Formats: sequence, C-alpha cells, structure tokens
Amino acid sequence: MSSDPATEHTGSVSCPIVRHRRGVSKAVTDHVVEEFPVALVFNGISHAVMMATPLDLESFAVGFALTEGIVERTADIYDLEVLMYPDSAEVQLTIAQPAFLQLKDKRRSLAGRTGCGVCGIESIELLDLQPQKIARREGMSDVSPSAIEAAASELPDRQILMRETGGIHAAAWCKPDGSIVEVFEDVGRHNALDKLIGGLALRREDMQDGFVFLSSRASYELVRKTARMNIALLATISAPTSLAIDLAQRAGMRLLSFCREDGFVEYTANESSSPVRQAASMETVRTDAA
Amino acid sequence: MSSDPATEHTGSVSCPIVRHRRGVSKAVTDHVVEEFPVALVFNGISHAVMMATPLDLESFAVGFALTEGIVERTADIYDLEVLMYPDSAEVQLTIAQPAFLQLKDKRRSLAGRTGCGVCGIESIELLDLQPQKIARREGMSDVSPSAIEAAASELPDRQILMRETGGIHAAAWCKPDGSIVEVFEDVGRHNALDKLIGGLALRREDMQDGFVFLSSRASYELVRKTARMNIALLATISAPTSLAIDLAQRAGMRLLSFCREDGFVEYTANESSSPVRQAASMETVRTDAA
Repeated sequence: MSSDPATEHTGSVSCPIVRHRRGVSKAVTDHVVEEFPVALVFNGISHAVMMATPLDLESFAVGFALTEGIVERTADIYDLEVLMYPDSAEVQLTIAQPAFLQLKDKRRSLAGRTGCGVCGIESIELLDLQPQKIARREGMSDVSPSAIEAAASELPDRQILMRETGGIHAAAWCKPDGSIVEVFEDVGRHNALDKLIGGLALRREDMQDGFVFLSSRASYELVRKTARMNIALLATISAPTSLAIDLAQRAGMRLLSFCREDGFVEYTANESSSPVRQAASMETVRTDAA
Repeated sequence: MSSDPATEHTGSVSCPIVRHRRGVSKAVTDHVVEEFPVALVFNGISHAVMMATPLDLESFAVGFALTEGIVERTADIYDLEVLMYPDSAEVQLTIAQPAFLQLKDKRRSLAGRTGCGVCGIESIELLDLQPQKIARREGMSDVSPSAIEAAASELPDRQILMRETGGIHAAAWCKPDGSIVEVFEDVGRHNALDKLIGGLALRREDMQDGFVFLSSRASYELVRKTARMNIALLATISAPTSLAIDLAQRAGMRLLSFCREDGFVEYTANESSSPVRQAASMETVRTDAA
C-alpha cells in the first residue's frame, strides 16, 4: 500500500482570475483547491460518492470504512484499488464477508431510499446518538493546556495546500505533548479526518496515545467519527455545535474548541456540562405552501 | 405559512465551559450553535435527515425541495407541516403527484443503496455536472464591484447568531446595489442557502433581480443549488473549489469569492477561465490493505 495513484494530482489547480481591490482590477493566475467526486465501492457495490480532494485516497477509503463502522478493524479490508479517471475517482475495497453482509443488511433495510446530509441516513431512528464510552487505557498520558497551544502554533506551517489555496481543511495527529505527527488536507473536514484515521490505521499508530487537531468547527459527524476510533481528545480551531458537545459528553471524550496559540475553550470539563436545551414539547403547525 | 413552530428554539443553547487563556482558567457560561437532526418527509416517505439549526424550517424544507429539483416550483408543494420533538424535527411535505412519482422513480433506481456526501448520490453517473445555462432576463441590472463590497460590509451586522456563537454560516439575498434584503443562518452552509431560497420562494421574490452572498466557501453543491434557481451571481466570503468554478462556468453564472469590504476575486470573468486540470489517464494500482 505504498504507491499512491493520485500523485499526479497535487490537490490544487491553476485558474485565471480577475482580482478587484480598492477599485483596481488585475487579471492573474491563482491556485484553487481541487474538489473531485470519489466513489467508494465495497465488494462491487457502490456505496457513496464524496466530494474530496484527490490525494491520499487509500487512507481516505480506509478511514471512511473504519469511522463509518463498515469494518471493525483495518485487517477486515482485504484489498483496495484506486482507479483514477479524468474527472472522478473510484476506490474499490474488498472487505471481509461478515462486514459486507452487515453492510448489505443495513442497505437492504434502507431499500428504495436515499440518504442525505448525514452519511447514508434518511430516518432519525438510524442516527447514532448514543456513542460507546471511550475505553481509556491505564497509563495514557494526559494532555496539558500547553500541548494544545503548541499544536495550534505548529499547524499553520503544516497546511501546505491551505497556504496555496486558502480554502482547505486540515486534520492533524498530535502526540500528548502537542507535537504534530502527521497532517492530511481535504476540501471536506470529514474527509480530512477520514484520511487521517486511515493513515494512522495503515501504519498501526496507537490512537490511544495522542489527540486529533482539526482546522475546522466541531460538528456531530466529526465527534462521532473520532469517538468510534476510541480517541480520547478532539481539539478544533473553530466553534463546536451543541450536538458535538452532547456526543462528546456521552462518549467521555474531551472536546476543546477555539484552540489558538494563547488559549482554548474546554466544553467537557465536567459531567454536567451538556448544552442546556429548550424545554420543547411536540408541536404541530399546519400551513399551506401553495 | 406565517407561524414558525421553531420559535421556541433560538438557534443557540447555553453551555458551561472552561476558558483557558494565557495560563489562566475560568469557568463561565457561553452560547453554542444548535445542531439538530431534521428529517424531510415527502408524501409520507422519509427522504433525508439533515443536521441543521432548528430555525426557519419551513423555508428550509421549501428551499431544499426546490434546489434539489424535487419540485419545479413552490406551487407544487401543497402542504407542509413541521413537527418539533425534544431532540429532532420532522418536516412533512405533500407535493404534487407528478413530482412525487418522479422522486419515487429516482429512489427506485437507487433501491438497496444509500447515498452519502452528495445529496442522495451513490454513483458518479448520477452527479449533476452539466447544469442548465442560466436564463438571464433582458433589462436585469448588472452588479458592480462596489455592490459586492457593500454587501460584504453589511453582512457581519446581520449575522445575529454568528455574533453570539462564533460558529454558524449565513446566506444573504442582496439587491443589485448590494443592499441586503434578508439573511438566514444555519450550522450548515447548504442549509443556510436552502433556507434563503425557500424564504425567497415563499414570498415570491424575483430571483433574477439580485444575488446570493454566502459567509462560507463556494463548493460544487452551493453552485449547483444556486444555478438551479436561475440566480446569475454567487458571491462568497471564503475560497471556491475547482468544481465550483467549473460548474459556475458551465452554467454561465458569475462566481466571486474572497469578497471583502475592499475587494474580491472574480473566477468566471471569461469563457476560458476554467480551472486547468491535470492530464489524467486511467490508472490502476492494486494494493493489499490487510
């Protein structure tokens, strides 16, 4: 799993633009981030198309399979092929039969339906809002405030495509002292996280001994994916959502956001720190749209 | 269609946090943006669950139905009900029979599959990469650079939830002179756009006479949705993707990004300004992931 068929893509493309600034217009060439449809095919069945940056597609597919619970472990992926076409890519995965049967079962129960917004989910009952508690191993080092600040300080220098295009997310794996081990970039924040998880899984990195640092906001989906990998701390540069905090709380995961060089905000400092919801009751309003 | 059943939600929730800054920790209460599963149900069939901010859900559902091409016009939505539950919402739409039959057909062709990443799409052939050309009406006023800068200057003051939570997108409708008519906010940028489109459609606003201004990046999905409404100009605060530029070019839509008070970048100034892709050929790499 060494050669990357996507190496002819650099993650950015050049583009003629016209820059307007203080009343002056200038035609120049700039770089924009590549967005590219990537189909993920499991044992011959097309499962999902993601709009992604066409780099590190092996890591992406492995990470997606793991964080979406399609396989329980990397060893259940027997084979992986990346097919690059001019305007799209396809990753064909061969997964263990029990995992594939489970995926088929899940898909059969959705027969005739299409999902949207949340990966493959078209009814609220199927949302995974009760994550498993993260199993912390004895002796795992804790992460200090200075480690978070160190990661926040180091990340910008590691965001190669961000510097070039100004429009791409990064997911970094950090040691408990905040030093960054690896960074993956993608036009989608969940794709960047999947690439990171897949990259870590492929080289058998211990995901209990470190934390994830994301350049984005923290949403439901990112917390869910991180929790599924038993990672105990998620740090993000931008704001969290109510559901992200809620899920992190339930999973026993530390969630830190607005992480900058000089500080951050901890959203899961104690058991009772769930967001306070409105006292809502069921309510129906009938209206005519026509 | 006046009363909004979601008014008991404010779009943000309060949350106890610990703020770390320059070595000092302080426990305070802050506001975070509400993220909430919203199921969209067409003629009794659950079609999609979106993670959205539970405000303006009628506009959201109407906009989604229009921008996803489920209905051709607002009048094809006969009835709309919003059901609010404590931890989720459901919008039940009754649409015209021909539109529903078409939706069922589309769903039948996807039987046994689930979509992901792109609304309901699980195979690349189903991607809508050839948008219709935008039909410009005679006499529509053009948008000047100063109009873009005026909108960029006005938007921050209109982002109520952004000021409160620091983590939410905005979609604004602007007159050709750049004055902002209406702003919708949502934790998802495509949801914010759908709410805006739905809101405009419900009050029969002329979408040929103005432009959309988004606080986010410009991606494939946002251009596709905007083009489908025949809107001739999309302006965004942050960067565009290669596919967004490509689609805008094909649709004959003006795409302006990095829009700020003192300037912006035009990505579609002439017919030949498509992003330059790599000369890619089909390539296969076989690897073993196990």
